[in-house]
Amino acid sequence: MPYFDAASAAPLHPVARQALTASLDEGWADPARLYKEGRRARLLLDAAREAAAEAVGCRPDELVFTPSGTAAVHSGIAGALAGRRRTGHHLIVSAVEHSSVLHAAEVHRSGGGTVTEVPVDRTGAVRPSEFGGALRPDTALACLQSANHEVGTLQPVAEAAEACRAAGVPLLVDAAQSLGWGPVEGGWSLLAASAHKWGGPSGVGLLVVRKGVRFAPRGPRDERESGRAPGFENLPAIVAAAASLRAVRAEAAQEAARLRELTERIRARVPALVPDVEVVGDPERRLPGVVTFSCLYVDGETVLHELDRAGFSVSSGSSCTSSTLTPSHVLKAMGVLSEGNVRVSLPPGTGEEDVERFLDVLPGVVAGVREKLGAPVSRTETVAEGPDEALVVDALGRRCPIPVIELAKVIGDVPVGGLVRVLSDDEAARLDIPAWCEMRGQEYVGEQPADRGAAYTVRRLS
Amino acid sequence: MPYFDAASAAPLHPVARQALTASLDEGWADPARLYKEGRRARLLLDAAREAAAEAVGCRPDELVFTPSGTAAVHSGIAGALAGRRRTGHHLIVSAVEHSSVLHAAEVHRSGGGTVTEVPVDRTGAVRPSEFGGALRPDTALACLQSANHEVGTLQPVAEAAEACRAAGVPLLVDAAQSLGWGPVEGGWSLLAASAHKWGGPSGVGLLVVRKGVRFAPRGPRDERESGRAPGFENLPAIVAAAASLRAVRAEAAQEAARLRELTERIRARVPALVPDVEVVGDPERRLPGVVTFSCLYVDGETVLHELDRAGFSVSSGSSCTSSTLTPSHVLKAMGVLSEGNVRVSLPPGTGEEDVERFLDVLPGVVAGVREKLGAPVSRTETVAEGPDEALVVDALGRRCPIPVIELAKVIGDVPVGGLVRVLSDDEAARLDIPAWCEMRGQEYVGEQPADRGAAYTVRRLS
Repeated sequence: MPYFDAASAAPLHPVARQALTASLDEGWADPARLYKEGRRARLLLDAAREAAAEAVGCRPDELVFTPSGTAAVHSGIAGALAGRRRTGHHLIVSAVEHSSVLHAAEVHRSGGGTVTEVPVDRTGAVRPSEFGGALRPDTALACLQSANHEVGTLQPVAEAAEACRAAGVPLLVDAAQSLGWGPVEGGWSLLAASAHKWGGPSGVGLLVVRKGVRFAPRGPRDERESGRAPGFENLPAIVAAAASLRAVRAEAAQEAARLRELTERIRARVPALVPDVEVVGDPERRLPGVVTFSCLYVDGETVLHELDRAGFSVSSGSSCTSSTLTPSHVLKAMGVLSEGNVRVSLPPGTGEEDVERFLDVLPGVVAGVREKLGAPVSRTETVAEGPDEALVVDALGRRCPIPVIELAKVIGDVPVGGLVRVLSDDEAARLDIPAWCEMRGQEYVGEQPADRGAAYTVRRLS
Repeated sequence: MPYFDAASAAPLHPVARQALTASLDEGWADPARLYKEGRRARLLLDAAREAAAEAVGCRPDELVFTPSGTAAVHSGIAGALAGRRRTGHHLIVSAVEHSSVLHAAEVHRSGGGTVTEVPVDRTGAVRPSEFGGALRPDTALACLQSANHEVGTLQPVAEAAEACRAAGVPLLVDAAQSLGWGPVEGGWSLLAASAHKWGGPSGVGLLVVRKGVRFAPRGPRDERESGRAPGFENLPAIVAAAASLRAVRAEAAQEAARLRELTERIRARVPALVPDVEVVGDPERRLPGVVTFSCLYVDGETVLHELDRAGFSVSSGSSCTSSTLTPSHVLKAMGVLSEGNVRVSLPPGTGEEDVERFLDVLPGVVAGVREKLGAPVSRTETVAEGPDEALVVDALGRRCPIPVIELAKVIGDVPVGGLVRVLSDDEAARLDIPAWCEMRGQEYVGEQPADRGAAYTVRRLS
């Protein structure tokens, strides 16, 4: 059954499996010990560090293994901020970073620091000039992902690093989504990554701190991993992580071209097969295996459930809030539709036939969900002119995608130039009603507070 | 080749190996996802949590998996202190806790908190009355290990928990060394443990927080593991950890009796086989597989190296400072000899013949090291009475065990009642010269500051 959620966790690469089981016999002892079993474990750890450092493009003594990508991000941000606390307490992040970065920023803010969130354009990318423009004399650290985890858009890391370097500010790159495809270019200062995103085992992250970067590890001291990742090393998994990174890199160029062609098909054909769909993310500067689209008049969870029943494992919305009703912070920052969001992220080795089958199945799944929700099946017809009074639709207490469905149902009932006002207390409506207007060529007039929730006003233009 | 350092890391239990490889295929996906692969991973995680909770004796929703025992200790202490910050900022620890606990206490102290270190007796145990006596109205948390990692002495956890409960203070138990042998008894509130100590894989710790205990997780928020252990779950390893805990428990009673008999042999025979040895730790209330002794006139590292050459993997001094010259904080707190310290910790399954061979080899190894260092071979002879002036021995710049060797060499040169003054700038001398006096029946007069280091005065009594 096709698994299309590699951006959450890639299936274990065969090389990772092999290295893991092979090193269980040699890698269980404490690498800090001087006896035979300890020395053997130390050799494995050193070799893994060298292999990982070569793949990253850094010195082995700049790289430590952490228990996860999240741990690498948390330690990296906290350590870099503490190392430069004399310079200031200003932190820069993009608005579309992974939640681990944004949560670390929250902690910094609640501890008295200041945080600038650099906005992104409609493709999900920051503008280098805008990122550089956020730099201040008191900026201690800037963070930018190498590629977005929800929409696959690549970020201008090299340009951002150049701006940071000119200002003397270290740049931390969350490379979780891209490291399997190649090293991160440019003069970054810190880098975090996660092995299970490239087909390595869970339980292993990487944190790289370039020589010369001021870094003060937080929390209780510990002698392991240069004091940057406390606790006994997760050794057989570290060996597997390094071996699989090497292995996926060897296959990367060929596999990237193949997956890019497959995701290109999805990008091109989904809008033709499914009405009222918006494909989001940069069409060119993007990860090879990721494509994300949003479908009007459906909710993501139901689509996911139906796709799962049809045998396809995909994801929706923000990676860490898919179980909640909050709309994805990434789609929100991009200003694109969030309702009915589907992220397809193909693991290496995905077959063409699976993608074709997905394209066969998707239109029926979306149509089925829309039918159940009573969504409009076609564009509204033009009716005669009428009074300028707004038609009020009460969608209070109804969840996404109902408010947009109700809007779409009645837009044809007002004359061209007429107004519809949707009352809604669903947070997603704030994002999805303007997005619907843009997709539909209607005018989004604005939002006003109401007794409950808000009133969203739309003018019919066509 | 016999591996006698199970207290650092136990060899992987066959059940752990089997569970780990078996769950690699089922346990790589994100357990937070709703599709098939995610649900499968969630089932594995839930089952592992139930099995581990049953072995601990707690509810599954009280137990989270952490990346290591160290991470469990760090998170547990920080979260419990934060949860009770309105009560006060006083933390109680025993003086012989694992370094992860003491380092967490250091952080608390440097953040403005107060810490009481409860001393131990010569066996390494705290007295319940003394532990309870440290409780204050502003005590936020108390920490006590279930058993000491260096000497194997069991701590009176149930009595300490009772005192804490009466005072309304939560007790955190570091059960890393004992959990494989059985549940921790008594009314503790938090518990930390580490899978690789019981034969599970590395990369997995446990943190248990009883219902009703105030707990405020520190650091950036994260939805996984009840917000108490951020980052993607180390799933196949978690499955292996839970399965192996169950397996070692099934064998625990029988194996404990067997190992206890073997360590009893070492306890009894080492002092007979090797002159000038002190066996430390409680002879009765102790872990089944651990025995620790210190040998005068040798340094632990050299003995370890020679034992390694003879095929035996053992450990020396504090688990986390063996690569440094600092004497073990545990032996220091016990007031016993630290020089020439050897910890033998037998993994389950250790054969009788390996222990016998160790006892054959040890005397020659110790004698060889002593010969190289020029240690005295026998007790000093009595000489005629003489003046009361102190004989000064300059051991400045010389490392353990040289200061004690120099003292032993000259003690026979002064008359009974006469004084020897040893000048030393080695931190271990402060511990080892009094310990030597106690072993030798000489009087330790005291210590005075000197230009460099200190002057340690000893009166010859026999």
